[in-house]
Amino acid sequence: MNVLWFELFSIGVAIASFVFAAWLYKWVKKQPSSNVKIAQVGKLIRQGAATFLSKEYRVLTRFAGIAAILILLFLPKPIWSGGFIKNITMAISYIAGTVFSAIAGKIGIEVATISNIKASEAAKNGIKPSFMAGFRGGAVMGMAVVGASLLGVTAVLLVTNNTTALLGFSFGASSLALFAKAGGGIFTKTADISADLVGKVELGIPEDDPRNPAVIADNVGDNVGDVAGMGADLFDSNVASMSAALVMAVALDKLANNTVNASMVFCYAALGLLASIIGVAMARIGKNGNPTKALNNSTYFTTGIYAVLTGLATFIFGFEWRIWGACIVGLVVGVIIGLTTDYFTDDSKKPVHYVAKASQSGPAFTILSGISYGLISVLPAMIGIAIAALAAYKLCEPIGYGYAMFGISMSAVGMLSIVGMIISNDAYGPIVDNARGLAEMGNLGDDVLEITDELDSAGNTVKAVTKGFAIAAAGLTVIALLGAFMSEVNTAAEELGVAGLTGFDVMDPVVFFGMLVGAAIPLVFSAMLMLGVDRNAQRMIDEIHRQFREIVGLKEGREGVHPEYDKCIEIATTGAIKELIPAGLMAIIATLVVGFVGGVAAIGGFLVGNIVSGLLFALFMSNAGGLWDNSKKYIEAGNEGGKGSTAHKSAVVGDTVGDPFKDTAGPSINTQITVVSLVASLLSTVFLTLSIF
Amino acid sequence: MNVLWFELFSIGVAIASFVFAAWLYKWVKKQPSSNVKIAQVGKLIRQGAATFLSKEYRVLTRFAGIAAILILLFLPKPIWSGGFIKNITMAISYIAGTVFSAIAGKIGIEVATISNIKASEAAKNGIKPSFMAGFRGGAVMGMAVVGASLLGVTAVLLVTNNTTALLGFSFGASSLALFAKAGGGIFTKTADISADLVGKVELGIPEDDPRNPAVIADNVGDNVGDVAGMGADLFDSNVASMSAALVMAVALDKLANNTVNASMVFCYAALGLLASIIGVAMARIGKNGNPTKALNNSTYFTTGIYAVLTGLATFIFGFEWRIWGACIVGLVVGVIIGLTTDYFTDDSKKPVHYVAKASQSGPAFTILSGISYGLISVLPAMIGIAIAALAAYKLCEPIGYGYAMFGISMSAVGMLSIVGMIISNDAYGPIVDNARGLAEMGNLGDDVLEITDELDSAGNTVKAVTKGFAIAAAGLTVIALLGAFMSEVNTAAEELGVAGLTGFDVMDPVVFFGMLVGAAIPLVFSAMLMLGVDRNAQRMIDEIHRQFREIVGLKEGREGVHPEYDKCIEIATTGAIKELIPAGLMAIIATLVVGFVGGVAAIGGFLVGNIVSGLLFALFMSNAGGLWDNSKKYIEAGNEGGKGSTAHKSAVVGDTVGDPFKDTAGPSINTQITVVSLVASLLSTVFLTLSIF
Repeated sequence: MNVLWFELFSIGVAIASFVFAAWLYKWVKKQPSSNVKIAQVGKLIRQGAATFLSKEYRVLTRFAGIAAILILLFLPKPIWSGGFIKNITMAISYIAGTVFSAIAGKIGIEVATISNIKASEAAKNGIKPSFMAGFRGGAVMGMAVVGASLLGVTAVLLVTNNTTALLGFSFGASSLALFAKAGGGIFTKTADISADLVGKVELGIPEDDPRNPAVIADNVGDNVGDVAGMGADLFDSNVASMSAALVMAVALDKLANNTVNASMVFCYAALGLLASIIGVAMARIGKNGNPTKALNNSTYFTTGIYAVLTGLATFIFGFEWRIWGACIVGLVVGVIIGLTTDYFTDDSKKPVHYVAKASQSGPAFTILSGISYGLISVLPAMIGIAIAALAAYKLCEPIGYGYAMFGISMSAVGMLSIVGMIISNDAYGPIVDNARGLAEMGNLGDDVLEITDELDSAGNTVKAVTKGFAIAAAGLTVIALLGAFMSEVNTAAEELGVAGLTGFDVMDPVVFFGMLVGAAIPLVFSAMLMLGVDRNAQRMIDEIHRQFREIVGLKEGREGVHPEYDKCIEIATTGAIKELIPAGLMAIIATLVVGFVGGVAAIGGFLVGNIVSGLLFALFMSNAGGLWDNSKKYIEAGNEGGKGSTAHKSAVVGDTVGDPFKDTAGPSINTQITVVSLVASLLSTVFLTLSIF
Repeated sequence: MNVLWFELFSIGVAIASFVFAAWLYKWVKKQPSSNVKIAQVGKLIRQGAATFLSKEYRVLTRFAGIAAILILLFLPKPIWSGGFIKNITMAISYIAGTVFSAIAGKIGIEVATISNIKASEAAKNGIKPSFMAGFRGGAVMGMAVVGASLLGVTAVLLVTNNTTALLGFSFGASSLALFAKAGGGIFTKTADISADLVGKVELGIPEDDPRNPAVIADNVGDNVGDVAGMGADLFDSNVASMSAALVMAVALDKLANNTVNASMVFCYAALGLLASIIGVAMARIGKNGNPTKALNNSTYFTTGIYAVLTGLATFIFGFEWRIWGACIVGLVVGVIIGLTTDYFTDDSKKPVHYVAKASQSGPAFTILSGISYGLISVLPAMIGIAIAALAAYKLCEPIGYGYAMFGISMSAVGMLSIVGMIISNDAYGPIVDNARGLAEMGNLGDDVLEITDELDSAGNTVKAVTKGFAIAAAGLTVIALLGAFMSEVNTAAEELGVAGLTGFDVMDPVVFFGMLVGAAIPLVFSAMLMLGVDRNAQRMIDEIHRQFREIVGLKEGREGVHPEYDKCIEIATTGAIKELIPAGLMAIIATLVVGFVGGVAAIGGFLVGNIVSGLLFALFMSNAGGLWDNSKKYIEAGNEGGKGSTAHKSAVVGDTVGDPFKDTAGPSINTQITVVSLVASLLSTVFLTLSIF
């Protein structure tokens, strides 16, 4: 069968996902809402998120414009050496990558800032309608992101028939993800930390108190950081894994003179989206059901459906069973890593209890024990990724030359297959978190707060799982990208008539040099983002203090006196973008320097070092952050002295340290790795011809 | 010229260093001391340190006994496959490695616990005599350690004429270092944290107050952690770097049928010790001189002498100038890394000021900013090591096949050449720290305290520099050990008639698998040590509380009432050994599992991953810890609100987190890497024949 049919099938499924998303959107919109206060606050959040996005997209447009011009001039080859059309294709693909991702993010935010209101008011009628409003709102994001990535990748390959253009598209998606994830991460934690520090710590007013000038910025942050940011991150990983797989599939197909491997990639990716559509459509919760269970069951259900569907397809179309095996290995390992992550952050398990107990001796012990368990939590995920890569490789090696690496890329595709479901679960979290805030500000009463608290807690638990999953998926993807990089280098080397690469030997000092430098980059990158949050929070705290000082009657909560919410949103927005750019540039410039010094061998080492240390730190920071967060909640639930105790005060310190760990630095490292890998792949010809060693 | 002459020269210099050490010891001993109270307390410290050492050595004897039996049975080859003599040689070399290091450590502690008293009382006569007593006391350790390592390595090669036996000797040194560094690190931080937490925080009594039951344990900790631990660590690195260089030198000499490379290794190593002897002998301070300057000047002076001496030797004996160049590159890079480390921990530089300022917003910001700068501090050192390795390799590559890797090992030898001076500077720190405590307990008055404070502060600054140096040296050494591992594998492969290794290609999934697992090990190892400190501190805190509760009149400081110091020392000792063993076993077992699963290729990846992430975490933890320590001191000097302010309270939290970072986990990672590398090298034949993949 021709690959065209599978491409059309992919487009069909992508369109189906958009139709489904539209239906979900309408469903959410027609849920009842009547509370005027909630509507007001909801509107402020909506506007704040829109302000951030439009400002971010404006800066991004300039950045992407410059990048597109550079691509036009230099990629895949300098424009003066011929190949004008190829360069234009590449530049357009790049822009398409940013635009597709931006639109998906915009849609997600749009729906999230409606469904928070709906979920809040629905909680008056019980947990079931509230859960459904939150989940279906999140699912719009899930469908939009995966539909757009599948459509984009398919369209680019259909139109250009050039896999290098796919890397351009993927780089576009990564550029956007860098802004959305790291920028959103700085925004959300700036607001969160500042609101807590002045509100809860200094003034002793409750969370989400409308007198706090940063409270709206905090709620906006949940949306731009967790909804738009996570969406862009997974859009990026999804596109990168498909692109890496297609680069290798097309190369293998060319040798065999058929299109079977490319067909398989499209088929499997489309079936993943289909499985997610079915999973989302079937997601239900009982009248007094457990929301965590409901979310997890949907994930397992989707996983099962996917395994069955791809098995059937493999049988019907006569695909290679070994590759199917690699795909399933990825899927299973992804779920297992999610579960082990859960162990380190779940409030019924030892790590949370230990950290809570240690907190009684003061904040230093909260930090030390949290860091320790965070460090240990890295091991199972690393072993899982290592085994997935090894198993996929060994499974597919017997098929023939080049299939081993292709197997790893298909394992990444498998792990990311259910990403539609994962994003739905993930976007659910900030929506119900917002719903809780709205219920508080709209005075919906304690019964409603109890329900939204339960939904929120489920969101936190699931978030830890999906985060582990996202990092593991990015890990496998970048290993696949390493294969894509080598494939690109060898294609370029053939054209230039110079020696290509057979691998990266770490005993080669140029590779080793690159590796040591590459390994240090994620540390510096995450440090720059954390210092950015720190500096930005200082600015916002000054502004909050100013408002409480200058706006008469604000502190006392006098009727009709409102804080200037937009000032805080403005500070968070401007600061986030300002602090993010140096970090992103540092990573890209380091790649260029290493490439020009050591050539493709050094870049190979650089990527390897970057992947290894990036995975370590992404996992460590995300898990330690989640652990502190849940330890605080565990104490607040009345353990180890409960609210107001020494343990609680210590746990608050832990949570504040954990915030930028888990929501700014940790998850942004994924994107940093992908960006660097793609820059390396795209510049392979340049590094091959111009370098000192 | 025959290598024997150079071996005899090495032995001669080693003996000279012992004679010099004996002279220094006598000099220190004849310094005046008369204060009865100080003598009493000094005796308690001395006995406490002796108790710890004897207990540690007892456990170590059992451990080493089992290891020696296993070596006898299995290494270098199973005893039933013949080669009985080789196995006995190996086992004896192993035991010799532990014994030599243990003796050097014992001597160091012996002198340190005399010179602390001398330095304390000498401070009554000004800074000059006090400095000299502290420095010369530390120098005994420096001379003993380097003399013993040079003598040991030379004797083993002379007697056995077998380089694999050298690896056995080196493994013995590593085993001891693991106990001394990690065990001592847990001991010292257990005591330090517990003493501070109950004494300073809960009861508000000053540091080093004799009523505090943990105060003697705290002073003992300085000696066993920083003197004996650091000494064993650098003994280990020094032996490992010489052994790695000799393994390669002898292999190269065999091919060329001469002994020129081995001669060079001995010559350079011996000249390093000679330069250190001269440097120590010349070390002086003016009547009102600056101790930091005096220590640093001695280091630069030694560095210069070494460069000149080796240059002369290279000229006279006609050694290869390129190898001399590699050696000097290592030396210079080591000094530069020390200086950049200084930037991140010096209290006149931006990072310390930033952390101090951020501390005003609470402990969470102390932690976040300290972690951020700690992460950034890793970059220059990683680049430095990368450049040293690359430059050494490229310099020596043109000499011929195999010289490139030998160049890296000589660069490590060069970096470690001045280690005698480094240890002297480093051991000076805890001695004057103790002296300060003794002055406080002996009521020597404020003038004396001012002098000992100044000496102590110089010790802290120099400590940061030497720590950066030690980690960098370990980094280069383990890269050289990687070369030694490959050399061992290929020798074994040749004997077995199977395929050897040409390198470790990270695109080989077995290598990649090993790398991901290996990279996670230092995280788990350091986490286990930190949790060990945490648990052990909880036990000691309970004991301190018990004493204050049960011993009548202790809290009030009634005349004649003394706390039971030995109970606290007992807890620190037992706990340290109990907590250390699982961490050490975990690292060794992980190596075995990976080796049996993936064979030598996986082990190659494992070592690479272990080295890269080990370097990252060792540097990060040491520097962040130093930064927090000095930020606290900077605030205590009256900045950002001074003592008692919010900033100070936050900085104390940072310092408590930093303590196990910089004195337990961070520096122990060095040893973990060396142990794992040596286990891998020693078991190369086993992994080559028995493995799944």
